Order: sequence, then structure tokens, then C-alpha cells
Amino acid sequence: MSYSGVVPPLATPLKESGDLDLDSLTRLIEFMIDAGVHGLFLLGTSGEAVFHDSASRTRVLEHAVKTINGRLPVFAGVIDTATDRVTDHARAAKAIGVDAVVATAPFYAQTDQAEIRDHYRYIREKADIPVVAYDIPFCTHVKLRRDTIVELAQEGTIIGLKDSSGEDREFRQVLLDLAGHPDFFGFTGAELVVDSALAMGAHGVVPGLGNVDPAGYVRLWNAFKRGDLAEARREQERLCILSEINGVAIGRVGLSSALSGATKTALRERGIIATNMVARPQQVLNDNEAAQIRKILADVGLI
Amino acid sequence: MSYSGVVPPLATPLKESGDLDLDSLTRLIEFMIDAGVHGLFLLGTSGEAVFHDSASRTRVLEHAVKTINGRLPVFAGVIDTATDRVTDHARAAKAIGVDAVVATAPFYAQTDQAEIRDHYRYIREKADIPVVAYDIPFCTHVKLRRDTIVELAQEGTIIGLKDSSGEDREFRQVLLDLAGHPDFFGFTGAELVVDSALAMGAHGVVPGLGNVDPAGYVRLWNAFKRGDLAEARREQERLCILSEINGVAIGRVGLSSALSGATKTALRERGIIATNMVARPQQVLNDNEAAQIRKILADVGLI
Amino acid sequence: MSYSGVVPPLATPLKESGDLDLDSLTRLIEFMIDAGVHGLFLLGTSGEAVFHDSASRTRVLEHAVKTINGRLPVFAGVIDTATDRVTDHARAAKAIGVDAVVATAPFYAQTDQAEIRDHYRYIREKADIPVVAYDIPFCTHVKLRRDTIVELAQEGTIIGLKDSSGEDREFRQVLLDLAGHPDFFGFTGAELVVDSALAMGAHGVVPGLGNVDPAGYVRLWNAFKRGDLAEARREQERLCILSEINGVAIGRVGLSSALSGATKTALRERGIIATNMVARPQQVLNDNEAAQIRKILADVGLI
Amino acid sequence: MSYSGVVPPLATPLKESGDLDLDSLTRLIEFMIDAGVHGLFLLGTSGEAVFHDSASRTRVLEHAVKTINGRLPVFAGVIDTATDRVTDHARAAKAIGVDAVVATAPFYAQTDQAEIRDHYRYIREKADIPVVAYDIPFCTHVKLRRDTIVELAQEGTIIGLKDSSGEDREFRQVLLDLAGHPDFFGFTGAELVVDSALAMGAHGVVPGLGNVDPAGYVRLWNAFKRGDLAEARREQERLCILSEINGVAIGRVGLSSALSGATKTALRERGIIATNMVARPQQVLNDNEAAQIRKILADVGLI
Repeated sequence: MSYSGVVPPLATPLKESGDLDLDSLTRLIEFMIDAGVHGLFLLGTSGEAVFHDSASRTRVLEHAVKTINGRLPVFAGVIDTATDRVTDHARAAKAIGVDAVVATAPFYAQTDQAEIRDHYRYIREKADIPVVAYDIPFCTHVKLRRDTIVELAQEGTIIGLKDSSGEDREFRQVLLDLAGHPDFFGFTGAELVVDSALAMGAHGVVPGLGNVDPAGYVRLWNAFKRGDLAEARREQERLCILSEINGVAIGRVGLSSALSGATKTALRERGIIATNMVARPQQVLNDNEAAQIRKILADVGLI
Repeated sequence: MSYSGVVPPLATPLKESGDLDLDSLTRLIEFMIDAGVHGLFLLGTSGEAVFHDSASRTRVLEHAVKTINGRLPVFAGVIDTATDRVTDHARAAKAIGVDAVVATAPFYAQTDQAEIRDHYRYIREKADIPVVAYDIPFCTHVKLRRDTIVELAQEGTIIGLKDSSGEDREFRQVLLDLAGHPDFFGFTGAELVVDSALAMGAHGVVPGLGNVDPAGYVRLWNAFKRGDLAEARREQERLCILSEINGVAIGRVGLSSALSGATKTALRERGIIATNMVARPQQVLNDNEAAQIRKILADVGLI
Repeated sequence: MSYSGVVPPLATPLKESGDLDLDSLTRLIEFMIDAGVHGLFLLGTSGEAVFHDSASRTRVLEHAVKTINGRLPVFAGVIDTATDRVTDHARAAKAIGVDAVVATAPFYAQTDQAEIRDHYRYIREKADIPVVAYDIPFCTHVKLRRDTIVELAQEGTIIGLKDSSGEDREFRQVLLDLAGHPDFFGFTGAELVVDSALAMGAHGVVPGLGNVDPAGYVRLWNAFKRGDLAEARREQERLCILSEINGVAIGRVGLSSALSGATKTALRERGIIATNMVARPQQVLNDNEAAQIRKILADVGLI
Repeated sequence: MSYSGVVPPLATPLKESGDLDLDSLTRLIEFMIDAGVHGLFLLGTSGEAVFHDSASRTRVLEHAVKTINGRLPVFAGVIDTATDRVTDHARAAKAIGVDAVVATAPFYAQTDQAEIRDHYRYIREKADIPVVAYDIPFCTHVKLRRDTIVELAQEGTIIGLKDSSGEDREFRQVLLDLAGHPDFFGFTGAELVVDSALAMGAHGVVPGLGNVDPAGYVRLWNAFKRGDLAEARREQERLCILSEINGVAIGRVGLSSALSGATKTALRERGIIATNMVARPQQVLNDNEAAQIRKILADVGLI
């Protein structure tokens, strides 16, 4: 059981009221499938998972699994502070029918690498579902070390890694360490250097920006797979221009609002989701920022 | 409605199985009341709150409220990643009958100070219970800024501050800014400089070490209140020696394990709780470490 | 050979051209002596030492030693990246006739605590002058650990500590560890909690704000020494208000400019130094900021 | 005037006494030239520049310029705390005859991006020599922001960037922003992802590991230039194995010692330099560590 390709971490659409907007989620999923992506990741950092409680997370996963209906593999984020809570999310996700769960290290409390390894072992054993390690020290404030990932992969605790650490050199060493390991996959979250990551052996990409332009990432992937690295680079550089949407609100709002807000505003402008509402207490992007985002979307040919 | 004095952040005792040990919690609460503390704080960082799910948190609070039975004010930590989840915890805590909830800034996702202020406003409004702001950047990786605290206090959103930032200079400025504000209270979590914090105007202390020696902190408080600063200092310096228990396991286990483990091991050695079990995936202190802790307890006259 | 009391870290006055303004330095020194301070610290962080080359540092020290002429102990900062360069500064300072040098850990390159201890040993041995350890992790990005300080003090490598770490709890433990050590002194740089630091056993204070109001810190010291803690606190709280000058330019200029600029602007407004020029590439505070600083000086009775 | 290719940041060989070992430096330079590198960078972080005073730095540069004798471009690090000191180093380097100087942001004191830009402008104007910006936040604790680099390049203040930030995504955006700019060059210091960096448009590489295996980096470069990306990747992956030497002493000594020590030990084992002595107060790698390094050198065919 291995995975590869473009697996966007879906935004979680909201109504103006702040409630889940499942109709928009349906459209977002169909937009992804139409674009040819290879899997879907619900409730990741881009999905504002930590802003949602268990009930809300369950509704998102149930709706997604039903909508996707086996057309693509479904990964579910089970982001939470520590082992028991993550295990609970993982059990719920399994019951709903996702293919694998994606779990970070514990956060808020400081744990060491031995404790982090036990964290993953416990989740794997108790929830009995394939587990992907999610390395995102920018949010968790702890790095999943190279030897931790390698040990967990070799013993079969994790089936893959989603690397959002930005530390491409360590990611490369993990890929080299596990090059001979059957089925292990390493996905990069570094959406601006996907061509590089694939060239060094990454098996796929989980691009937040793929919400807005899934077809672009699919073209990048296909160009790489057929060996047309120049085209992969051109597509990546176009997506680098698109990524400027993420900077539009930085400074006026918090970083999380700026990123989630840019994604949702762009999706609204492209007609996929109904509002650019973000989860409480984040702030919504304003009309001026939306205008800047429209300009960037037009620059890269998306509207 | 204001508060003052010694308010220990209670450990959450566990059985060897990892389940809640409510009998030990009863003994711990009675140990506190016998020592003369002025309030109790359940489910703080020292209470390993983030390792517990909602059901477990509810059991702890229900048991504590029933056991305390109005003899002391009860503060409940509602530590979680973002606004809606914190609000849910706060509603549950209110229903159980605690006196106030203690909430950190959002974490994992990066929010700015304006968003943090909205976070507190929403919790206060929707849960309809007194809110204490909990500043612990070591865990949340964001500081509650002085102007944020002052604005929230002046508008009535928060009734007090628990300052575990270690930034005594900024804490002092908050105390000065709000010196004329009716009822606002500032509690320090800096358990090694309580005499200093009281001398600069703090209204109380929330000492993790107060689990192990509540009577010591009560003596410190009483000495300060009667103006015997030399005695307050002597008691504080004795407690500084006691605090060496926190360093015993550092390096061998993660920081959170080292601190929670030291507290629980000391409480076990003092005969208050049954085990030194810590919540998953933390590691338990070993016999060698327990022996070092016994030695320190003996040095300060606690066993 | 021990030291105590108020030892301001002097600003290094500049002309509009950026050259040293030794006439202003003379006036600043006499202003300090008139206020009754107990020592003077040249070329610290507040003295913008790292902006000055060896020749300029030599001119400052020669002028200061000549001007002070034995009326007060003179401490010289020897802040530089690594051991040999610091040793060179220390030798030059000794030849000029200062009483002790004040040295940080190496910075830019990452060294561990064993290497830091060797750093101090080498400086002490080769420069043959009393050495004070200067703990300022905000600038060096490494903490002088408690055990490092204690070992260096006990073996006679350092005569004292200037603690600008802001970690008052660790500072207190160092003071307790070395309470029985003859002559060791611990100075705090935490200018807003001097009353607290003295109450926990600090031997003196090195307040950047003491440039602007040396008499205030001397009054605080004297009140503490005669046991009038209430008066010490009142004076400290007045100085907390004065410290608001440090926030005036934050956001518009870099942090170093904001602090050095506030000190120099206040000294200019008080008529002590000629300009508020700061060393390259820092930015000078503007007229609007100067007006805000004048307002604060008036509020605390300094103009 | 632009540059490209493999430009190793040379180690600075020392005798057992700690004095400069210029004979070893000669051999190291000839080793580089024989391997076909395209330029040499003296007194970078790998050259332990911050451990050397001005006199020592001058001796290194004079010896290198004389030895190289125009056979390759010479870059000189002018790493120091602030503008005037850097400018002094730059003037000295110009007088010695280097081709360009490489300057970091100020460090120890906190400056903002506007001040950093002024820093570079002043150095460029007063030293009158081409300036390369050196982005190494791991040492300086400040990032050279994308807009700072672009502005400085477009106005002609800097001719290039050495990016040792590890933030490949921001580096890529700088390369894209300046793609149309005549002569600007971007060198990466990320020695484990050189193939990626070149593929995204980097003009060269400054690999610390290139001290040990310059021929490997030259092969990587040549493979890339002739379009043989598979061979570039193979060579890079071989160099990733070589990079394990950098981890051998981590934990036992400080990070700077571990890295400089690994480079020098490997060079000694290869017979290029006489000792593995590192600059004070760093610690020398021991025999056990040297044996591990020999093993790695053998694994990649270097001994």
C-alpha cells in the first residue's frame, strides 16, 4: 500500500455564519477530481483542522468520504495535542473509511524523540489504520528527526512522511535512507520547489496552493513523470507567481489567517466555494486584498 | 469577584494502567485544603491537560468540584488549540460548576494579537463564565502582549492573568497598568521568585511545586502578608532547593515528562498519590530518579 | 576585590558626523559621578560596543579612565565574536587601566558550555585581568548556564556575573549557589525589577536606563540598603514609567536603534550630551519621537 | 562582472600551536585548483573567520591572493558585527587584491531590514569593491529578506548573494525576481541539494564539503551543465554520504567545532593539511571521531 502524486490538503469551506459549508466542499472535491489529482488530504493545516472540534471534523470526513466514494485515496489529518486525543481522531477516521491518517508530533507539551516514536506506535497499534507522519515544526515546534522517521518506517509503524519542515536537506537524507524500503513514500509540502523534491526522489506533493490550481500541480507532476524537467520547472515557476497570493494579507492579519484567507478568497473568486470565511478567531481577508488576489489569479491565467 | 493567594495547579493522578486515579485526586485535594491554600487550579499545564480528551477532563472536573464542595474557589484550565474548542471546554466547566476558566492563546496555528483578543471575547461571551488569561509562551509560542492583557481587563473580558511567561518585567508593567482596576488580579507561575512577584504587586501564585509542598507556599504567602519579607525569602529559598527535583530527569526524558514526573514522584514519595504514572506518550521517572527526588525531599524536610 | 551598587552601562556619545564625542562623554561621566553611582561600565551593549572597532574602543576607554581618574571602579566591555579577539580587547583594556573586563560567550559560531568555560579561562589567563561574565542570550543566542557560572566562579576564573538574560529564576539559583563564595558578585541588567533582584541577593545593577536617571537608581539602591523596601519599590515604579522611552521608536526602527536612540535622545534633552546620533547602520530617532520622550521625561520629573 | 560555478569556502589551516599554517593553506589552494573549481572563498564561516582578528585575516588573504595569483577569482569574507568594522575589513581586502567581498547582516545588535540595506550601501560606497550579500541567519539570527536582496541587487549595491539560509523557497523567489537582471548571481550554500539549486537557476555553489571533495562538486557542476541530471543527482547523493562526517562529533562538542573539525580532520586524513586543529575555544576532534571520518571517506572512495 503506497501512494504517490498530487494530494492537495483541502481547505474546509465555511458559511458566513462560520458553520461548515458542505456544498462548497462537494464542489471543491469535484474540482480536484476533475483536475486529475491523485489523492485528497482532509483536515490538514490548510484545512484549519485545529480550529475544529471532533464533531465538526467527523462531519467533514463523512461528507468527503461519501462524496469521493472511492474515486481517490483519502487521507485524514488527526492533528491534536497528544497521543490519546490523536488516537481517538484516528479511530473515528477509520470508522468513517479513510485510507490513512496523518499525525503530527505532540505539541504544546515538550516531548523528546523517544516519546514521539512511542506516540506513533501507540496510534498505529490502537487505531489500527495506516499512519503517515506529518513533520511541521513551524506549528508543532519540534522536528521529526531523520533517525526517528527512518526507525518508524523500517519497523512498519508509518507508511509515509508528509514533510512540511522546509528542511529539504534533511528530507533528502530521509529519502536516501529509505530508498530501498518497500512502499515507504515521502511527500513534500514545499509547494514552491516541487520539481526539486521530485527530482531528489519524493513520491508526491501536498500543496496548499493546489487548492487554487490543482491542474497546475498535475501538469507539473505529469511533466516530471515523462522526463520533461524544463516544462516541470516552467509550471513550478508559474505556481511561484500564484503563491504571491499568500503574502497579500501578511502584516494586517495573523499568518494563519493570511494563508487560509488567501486560499479561500482565491477559491471564491474562481467560483468553487461560496465564501472566504475562515475559522474563529482568524480574520477574513477584505475587499482590497481580494482585489489583489484577483489580479494575481489573472496574471497566471486562472480567471 | 477577585481572587488572591496560593492556588496550586494540581497534578492529575493516574493509575499504572494510565486511567484516571480519582482516589488519589481526592487525597491530593484534601492535602491542599489541609495546607491552607486559597484556591485550586485543575487541568493546567501541570495537570497535563493537553494529554486528556474532553471526557477525561470532564471526569476530573466533576470529581474535583464534588470533592472540594465549595470549600475553595475552583479554576479550570480549558487549554486547547483554538476558540471553538476552548469555548466548548469552558461551557462544560461552567456546567460542572467551576468558578472561572483559564484559557491560553490559540496555538499550533499562528494568530496575531487582535485575533487573540477576539478569541478571549468570544469565549467570555459564549461560555458566559469568568475568564482568566493564561500566558505561557513556552508552550503556545506566542506572548500575550501587555497591551492585549490591559485592553481585555479594562473592557471586562478577563478577570485576571496567570503569567507563566517568565518575563517578570512585562508582568510588572501589566500590574502597574492595571493597579487602579477594580478586581483584576495577576497571578504568577514563576514559583522560584514568588516573594519578588508579591512585592511588585502580584495577587497570588500558581506554583507547580505547590503540589509537593503547598504548606511551604502558604507560609511564604503568610509571611509576606504580615510584612515579614525576610521570612518570605527564607521560605522561597527553601522552595528553590525543592525545585531541584525538576532537573533530575532532564536529558533522559522530554521536558514535560521531567516536570510532571518529578511532581508525581514526589507526591508518591510523600504518600499522597498512588503512582508516578504520567500521561502517554510521556515517560515515567525511574527508580534512580525517584531516589534522587527522595534525597531532595529529605533535604528540605518533607520526608 | 568585589563590587556592588549602581554601575550604569554608559552610552557612547557621537557627533553628527558619527565620530566619537569625547566632550559629551566627559559630561556624561561627571553626571554619573555627581549622581553618586558606584562604578561605570564602558563599552557594553548600551555603549554600542559592537559597532566600534578596536581603535575607537581604545579612545573611549582611554578618555574614560583619564576622566574618571580613580574616582570610581571602571569596567570595560570586551564584546567580540571569539576568544582571541576578546583577549586582545582585554589586554588593551588592562594596559589602559580599567579595573575589570566584562566578556560575553562567543557568538555567531555555536559553541557549547565546555567551550564557553575554556573561553573564559583563556581570557583570564592570557589577559591577566579580573573578568566578569556577561550573560546576554538575546544578543549572543546562547545562555551562560548556571553550572557554567558556578564552576567559573568557584575556580576563580570570573569575579562576577552581569546577568542580562531576563531569566530571574536561574539568576536567583546562581546567587544561592554562590552565596557562600567570598567576593563573587552578581549584577542584574534587569532595570525594571532591581528592587526584586536586590531582595533576592543581587549585589548591584547595571541599568541602561541609569544613563538617563542615575540619581533614581542611586535612590533605589540607598532605600534598599537602609531597609526601606516600600520606597525602593516606589522609585522602581517611577523608573518603570521612565522606561517607556524605550518603546517610542519600536516598529519604525530596529530594536537596537530604538533603545540606543531613546537613551541618547533623553540624554540630549536633559542637556548632558550634544546629539542623539547612533552608530552606523542604526537610525536616529526623529523629532516626533524626541517629543514623546520629552513628555515622558517631564512625567517623571526629569525635565 | 559575474561569477558562477563551484566556489569552496576554504578552511583556515592551523598548526598545533593554534597559529596559522600557511603551508597547509598553500596545499589546500593547489588541491582546489587541481580539482577544477571556479573560484575560492576565503574567511567564510567554514574558514572560522570570526575566530580570527584583523591581523590574522590579513595574513590569510595576502597568502591566498599571492598563491592563487590570478588563476581564480578570490572572494573574501568580511564577517563582523557592524558596518564600520565590516568596511574596514573590506578596505583591507581590496588593498590585498581580492575580487569581491562577502558580507553578512550586522549581528549581536538587532537591526531591521532598512538598516541592513544601509549597511550594505555604506560598505559598497566606502570600500569601493564589489559586494556579495551573505545570508546566514543560523549565525546572524536575522534573515536577509527577499525584497532586501532584490532592492540591493537592482540598485547595484550587491553583485550577488550567497544563500546559506536553507530556505530554498525564498531563494528561488529571489532568483526569479532577478532572473532578468544582468550579472546578478545567486550562490547556494546548501551543499546537499546543489543539483536542485542549479535546476532552479542558481549560478553556483559554495559548499563547505567542497573542502574535502572539490572534484565531486566539479563533477556535479559539469554533469549539470551538460544536461546530465541523472549523473548530477548520483554525484550529489554520493556527497550526501560524505556529509555524514559532519555528524560524527555532534553532541560531544559544539556545533561549530563539529563542522570545522570534521572538515579539517578529513583534509588531514586526505593528506592535504597538517593538523585538524580548530580555532580557540573550539574543541579538536579525537582519534575515535577521526576513525569514523576515515571510514566515511573510504566509503565514498576518497581514501
